[in-house]
Amino acid sequence: MRVAILGHGVVGGGVSRILLSEKKAATLAAICTLDPKKDSLYSEYPDFFRPFEEVLSDSSIDIVVETIGGTGIALDMVQKSLRAKKNVVTANKEMIAKHFSELQDLAKENGVSLLFEASVGGGIPMLSAIEHGLVGDKIQKVEGILNGTTNYILTKMEREGVDFKTVLQEAQDLGYAEADPTADVEGFDALYKLVILIALIFQKEIPFDQVSRQGITALKSCDFEYARRFGSSIKLAALAERTEEGIAAEVSPVLFSNKNPLSNVHGVLNAVLLVGKYNTVGNFLSGEGAGRFPTAAAIASNVIDIAQGGHSLSYSLEPSSPLSFKNRSYYLRFFVKDCSGIVGKIGTLFGKYGISLDAVDQIRGQEGNIHFAITTFSASSKDFQKAMEEIKTCDFHSEEPLVLPIISG
Amino acid sequence: MRVAILGHGVVGGGVSRILLSEKKAATLAAICTLDPKKDSLYSEYPDFFRPFEEVLSDSSIDIVVETIGGTGIALDMVQKSLRAKKNVVTANKEMIAKHFSELQDLAKENGVSLLFEASVGGGIPMLSAIEHGLVGDKIQKVEGILNGTTNYILTKMEREGVDFKTVLQEAQDLGYAEADPTADVEGFDALYKLVILIALIFQKEIPFDQVSRQGITALKSCDFEYARRFGSSIKLAALAERTEEGIAAEVSPVLFSNKNPLSNVHGVLNAVLLVGKYNTVGNFLSGEGAGRFPTAAAIASNVIDIAQGGHSLSYSLEPSSPLSFKNRSYYLRFFVKDCSGIVGKIGTLFGKYGISLDAVDQIRGQEGNIHFAITTFSASSKDFQKAMEEIKTCDFHSEEPLVLPIISG
Repeated sequence: MRVAILGHGVVGGGVSRILLSEKKAATLAAICTLDPKKDSLYSEYPDFFRPFEEVLSDSSIDIVVETIGGTGIALDMVQKSLRAKKNVVTANKEMIAKHFSELQDLAKENGVSLLFEASVGGGIPMLSAIEHGLVGDKIQKVEGILNGTTNYILTKMEREGVDFKTVLQEAQDLGYAEADPTADVEGFDALYKLVILIALIFQKEIPFDQVSRQGITALKSCDFEYARRFGSSIKLAALAERTEEGIAAEVSPVLFSNKNPLSNVHGVLNAVLLVGKYNTVGNFLSGEGAGRFPTAAAIASNVIDIAQGGHSLSYSLEPSSPLSFKNRSYYLRFFVKDCSGIVGKIGTLFGKYGISLDAVDQIRGQEGNIHFAITTFSASSKDFQKAMEEIKTCDFHSEEPLVLPIISG
Repeated sequence: MRVAILGHGVVGGGVSRILLSEKKAATLAAICTLDPKKDSLYSEYPDFFRPFEEVLSDSSIDIVVETIGGTGIALDMVQKSLRAKKNVVTANKEMIAKHFSELQDLAKENGVSLLFEASVGGGIPMLSAIEHGLVGDKIQKVEGILNGTTNYILTKMEREGVDFKTVLQEAQDLGYAEADPTADVEGFDALYKLVILIALIFQKEIPFDQVSRQGITALKSCDFEYARRFGSSIKLAALAERTEEGIAAEVSPVLFSNKNPLSNVHGVLNAVLLVGKYNTVGNFLSGEGAGRFPTAAAIASNVIDIAQGGHSLSYSLEPSSPLSFKNRSYYLRFFVKDCSGIVGKIGTLFGKYGISLDAVDQIRGQEGNIHFAITTFSASSKDFQKAMEEIKTCDFHSEEPLVLPIISG
């Protein structure tokens, strides 16, 4: 099979290197990039560099790999490629999260495949696991760490006790975070990936802007210390669960208890825990969630898969609104002006709604702003919301309290 | 697609339950078992119970699931099924480890698929990951915990400080270990699975009786305490690595350092770490390696995969002898009559072969037999063997010393 690569940056360049150096069932045939003469492969392989229109009309090209990203020109080129009856392999999570149904239909109409293993979890074979090895189970619950940038930042904050802004700056200097870090730190990137997982696992098409989403910018270094004392670790989690009423979904920093394998996923690694009706302990997959070669290898895997007679599955996606999680334990961290009687007041307000406190902790020797943390036993999230509304109106706060779910093992 | 199940015990019965309760692309059509009238499904579904000959000649049956095990009648029935142009799905690791080439050829000749996800890692989608999501990478190294029974025993020994025989008895009483535990505790089961992984990953056919294999019967409770002090955990590991000379392979208890995710796999869980040329940190998969429903779900996954147009890949296996691992750090535990000057003697003998000791430890307050443990820095395994031959001839031993490889993160 002959392959064209659209976009030849970090990931696209990785794909061309893999196809050139491994003798596999697929060979590189074309590269479409804006400025061929500036490309590091140009001097050695000038013939690969061809305009997209030529690739489209070249019937010897079977597979188009899209590594441009976003939903502008990339979407247009993918649509044109599918209409030209070329299989498409992409790492573009935003495009798949927003246009999967439409692109899938286009692929079906034209009798070609659309594969996107690299769009979720980078080099980790999450989508293959869902579409092949676990397809006979009925997955009930997904817990994922799907964004390497935020996991790097959170791990640094946890290990070094430094604050968010300092670590973000460092991550930007190292190239782990974008100049505009919004997509990562506000949870959009993780959300796109969660939306894709929900489509493949639950066959639901959920509007990504309806999913509850909380970023990591409100976290303070004291939160990591409290989490540690509560036997857990703070991670930006992508969560989804099959319930009788529909699919509950959320992207939020959470406290993973140390019994949960996700608590042990550090740095730029990604991971997912897939709990099934039949695999009740859950299958846990972790590895490199980003980076040139892991991502390129996942793309190459889809390419080889197609070359070996594999094809994309056909999903009947049902439009569906995401639900909130019903019952939860919570971590709360308060900054207050002074401490006297406050825990009692909070306990009383929670008690009114039938919510019990599990633990209360305060780091000693604080200067200036006083903070403390509370955990609750499992509570109805509706009751919890009501209690929080009352608690937030109290006059003891010096800052907005932080509320995070606790996910046990 | 219509499915027949051969053998209707723990796993086969799990498969029929999954096919009956999930509305998927495959439906149950026949069950072949020795004594149908004693089967718990017989009263409700008497028509499913049919003789194998009838299944073979029934052209409406597309897929045969083999859950009998072993290489006797199971092999014969699988061969006949393939010749009758039925796709075969099996969990039979011994059969695949010993007869993969021949069965693969038979499947090819008859234009059908042979899939065996459940044969390695139970419910964990290891083979799908290798054949789909990671097929574009070049896997260099495999580190696996592939036997749930021994991992259960080792975890118990580690946590409770009890000896091998006591835990084995307990495991047998609970049904986690067979009455004849040889296949598990001597490493044969893990070895069959390793041979299958080597075939799919490295396309090598290695004779399973040529692989270096050490069971877990020589381990004492003190070894777990030494391992803990050395920052590691003892597991029965299945190891393989691509080298320039060929494939190194081994089944042995090892010390996984705490940095290695395999050190954290406890109880009946299984796991594998697949380190690639492009996924250099490695993909780590863990989950339930055995048990009725995890195994049955893996079989059902293969069945659904075939029903959705999936098929087995075609491997050109090259017969190959397994090599030993060249360079290693080692853990050694000695039982001696008395301690004076022995560490110095051992250090001198190792020094003769250029091998340096890393750490020496002795648990205090011992009664009777005196034991101590040593770890070495990385050494050539040939030199190490030579040194060990000399050390074993010394007269200070009260028991044969235990030697285990140390695998770092």
